[in-house]
Formats: sequence, structure tokens, C-alpha cells
Amino acid sequence: MSDADPRLADRAAITEQMYRYARATDWLETEWHRDVFAADCVFASPHSGDMHGVDSVVEWMNRVLAQFEATQHLISNISITFTGETTAQAVSYVRAWHRYPDPERADMVLWGEYHDRWTLIEGVWRIAERRVLEAGIEPRRDGGAKNPRRTNGSRT
Amino acid sequence: MSDADPRLADRAAITEQMYRYARATDWLETEWHRDVFAADCVFASPHSGDMHGVDSVVEWMNRVLAQFEATQHLISNISITFTGETTAQAVSYVRAWHRYPDPERADMVLWGEYHDRWTLIEGVWRIAERRVLEAGIEPRRDGGAKNPRRTNGSRT
Amino acid sequence: MSDADPRLADRAAITEQMYRYARATDWLETEWHRDVFAADCVFASPHSGDMHGVDSVVEWMNRVLAQFEATQHLISNISITFTGETTAQAVSYVRAWHRYPDPERADMVLWGEYHDRWTLIEGVWRIAERRVLEAGIEPRRDGGAKNPRRTNGSRT
Repeated sequence: MSDADPRLADRAAITEQMYRYARATDWLETEWHRDVFAADCVFASPHSGDMHGVDSVVEWMNRVLAQFEATQHLISNISITFTGETTAQAVSYVRAWHRYPDPERADMVLWGEYHDRWTLIEGVWRIAERRVLEAGIEPRRDGGAKNPRRTNGSRT
Repeated sequence: MSDADPRLADRAAITEQMYRYARATDWLETEWHRDVFAADCVFASPHSGDMHGVDSVVEWMNRVLAQFEATQHLISNISITFTGETTAQAVSYVRAWHRYPDPERADMVLWGEYHDRWTLIEGVWRIAERRVLEAGIEPRRDGGAKNPRRTNGSRT
Repeated sequence: MSDADPRLADRAAITEQMYRYARATDWLETEWHRDVFAADCVFASPHSGDMHGVDSVVEWMNRVLAQFEATQHLISNISITFTGETTAQAVSYVRAWHRYPDPERADMVLWGEYHDRWTLIEGVWRIAERRVLEAGIEPRRDGGAKNPRRTNGSRT
């Protein structure tokens, strides 16, 4: 067996918060983001630039989500690395599906990655920083922000 | 660190049962659903109405799955809340992909949520109640059952 | 509550390696596969035949991945069964998305399953054998390798 992992409870807690983020978004319970993000967080979605503070995150979510009939943020591949007792880094994958009210308009899907810093504040793991990298968008469009992680030169 | 989570083994056991449900469905091992559901369960898929009892679930699975060449139930965002020593609630996301034998017919995809009650019976976590909410269906169609969770009025 | 699961740390470690496999692939960090596979592994992708040894895996990844602009391997439904102190079997689902540089060419998506044997070598869980089963491919094509698991005869 592997050595015991003393951070299993922390892993479960961070994972649960990742899903709370998704439900806060998909269920338009945008105020719940205050339970997920640190008050002085940084959040950067592709093309949004850096947002500072959870008020900005909630305001942005309210504004952006209003244009969709439905969304679903399917989160997977959650990989967490602890950097201290109260700090962690995490990378996860997301398939963020967005449907417009106009039935003629194609659904928009972001295949992305969340690159996060997490911090434990008064017993609750919170996102200190979340950067959303774009692996791809459907429908395909020019000017996509290519995933900077696919740049190590090993392509032949 | 977070306080220890004494329910980690329960979380793992419920999660494993969720995936057993998916394999029972996707591999047409529909009898395996008897290992996942409680005998007196309630199961409600969009548009199916409530089914009562695991016999009904197995019969329905056999009937409905027969029309597809293949399916895949990709389950994610599993969030479990314990309500007692032997009871839990869970919400999870599913991307349920369905392919018809007719190559001209588009694949049907349900973006859904499972809203469950789980109960521990003789050492095995089982689904007492599963309600499948629809976030969206592809190909898009009229009359979709809109996700009732996206109704909190925060849309502007 | 369930009995304690003494393998929770092993489950977390194998899961983490599954995601490392995905990032090694999607980020073109193909050398990382040496941290995931056993040196004498067997790897079989649909239509590839069996590859033997991690050198073959890395060479194949470099060759095959070079044709894509981007990929994302979304892994879910990870089910692990321990067969000994240092051995395990695992089944997981994957939605492997592949985008070609040619914007006119449709994205290729494999809905698959990983059927693995894992082994603990010097404290690190590694893939001894990985077989990729195909549940379906988009765009749909003739000659797909039907999922052999959907063959139990319960289709009516």
C-alpha cells in the first residue's frame, strides 16, 4: 500500500468546493460564489482579463450568465498539490456547455482547464486565484486563446 | 488542514456505486442495478414519471436501452451530504450519450443531474430515490424539461 | 457508516496518476508518461495493436499527437479494485477530444473506456497494462470497434 495520505479530508473538501462553484454557476445561485472564493480573490476567464475580489466575480457571473438559457460545468481530472498546511494548487478540466435562448444558435462549449490557488480560511477552503485556460471552443472560431501548456516543443 | 472527515469511506463507497450504475447501463448488465438500487426505490427519468421498485427499473432499462447501439454515462461533480449514519443526499452531473443503430440519426445527449437519496442497507449503499433533472438535450428540441434549479430569479 | 477503507490513499494515488496521464498527453509533456507507466507496460489503443514498453508508448504519443492542434482527455467514472497489496485493476471512462489544425475538419472524439492493471513499484502506482475500449467515435464512421462489454445478450 501507499503511505497514508494525511490530506485526504482536505482533498475531499477542495473537490466539494469545486462542485459548489459549478452549481453556483449552473443554477444561477451566484451568491454561493461568496462561499467558494476568497474575498480578495483573482479570477480570470479567457478574454475577461483579471477580476479582483469576489464582488467582481459575482457581478460578472450575473452579467455573463444572463445571456444563456442553460449551462453545465462538468468538472473532472481534479489534481491537487498541497503547498502548505493552508495552501494548495489545483489543476482541473472543465467541459463548460452553454445554450442560448435562440434555438437557431449553436451551443457554445469551452473545453478548458482551471489553474487555481486555494487557501484555507477559517476552516473553509477557498479559491485565492483561478485562471481558466482554453483548450478549445465549439463552435470553432478564429482567435481562440491556445492552451499555453501545449507549447513544450515536443510536437514533431 | 481541515478536520478529519470520518465519512471518506462512505463517500468512496457511494461514488463507486454511482459508477456501477453507469456500467450496468452502458454494458447492458442491467441486472447489476439490483446491486445499486434499494428494492423499494423510486426512480424518475425526464418524461418517464416515477417508477417504483427495482424490478421496474430493470424492466425499464432493458426496454429503453434496446433502442441504442451504444451509450455512455459520464458522471462527474459528485457532491454527497450525509443526513445520518445510514442516509445521504447526493447531487451529480451526467453527460449521457446515446447512439442509435441508424447511422443517419444524430446521437442523443442528455446533459443532466442526478438528485439522489442514498441509504446504507446491510453494509451496502443503495439508491433509495433518484430523480434525473434535464439541463439540456442534444439535438435540441422543443418541450425540454427545463432544469428547475435554474429558477432563482437572479437572471437579469 | 461503512467500514473504514484502508485503501483510500491508494485510490487517491492511482486517480492522481490517471490525471497525470491526461496532462502528459494534452500538454505534450509526453516524457511524463515515464512517471505513469511501468517500464515493461502494455498499452493498446483501438486499432493500434499492443505496444510493449514505455519507450513505445512515448514514441507513439509523440507521433500520433503531432497531428492535432489540441486534445483534451476528460476522465471520469474511475472504479478501482485492489487485487493485492501492490496490484489493482481499474476501469474508467474517457471523453478524448481531438482538434485538427485544419479548421474545416471536424473534431474527432473518442468515447472510450480504460481497462487497466496497476502495480505499485517503489512507492509509485504505475500502469502495467492499459487497454482502451471504444464505446463510440465522432464523427461516426464505419468499422468502429464496438465496445465488447455491450455483448451480454440482454438486449431485446
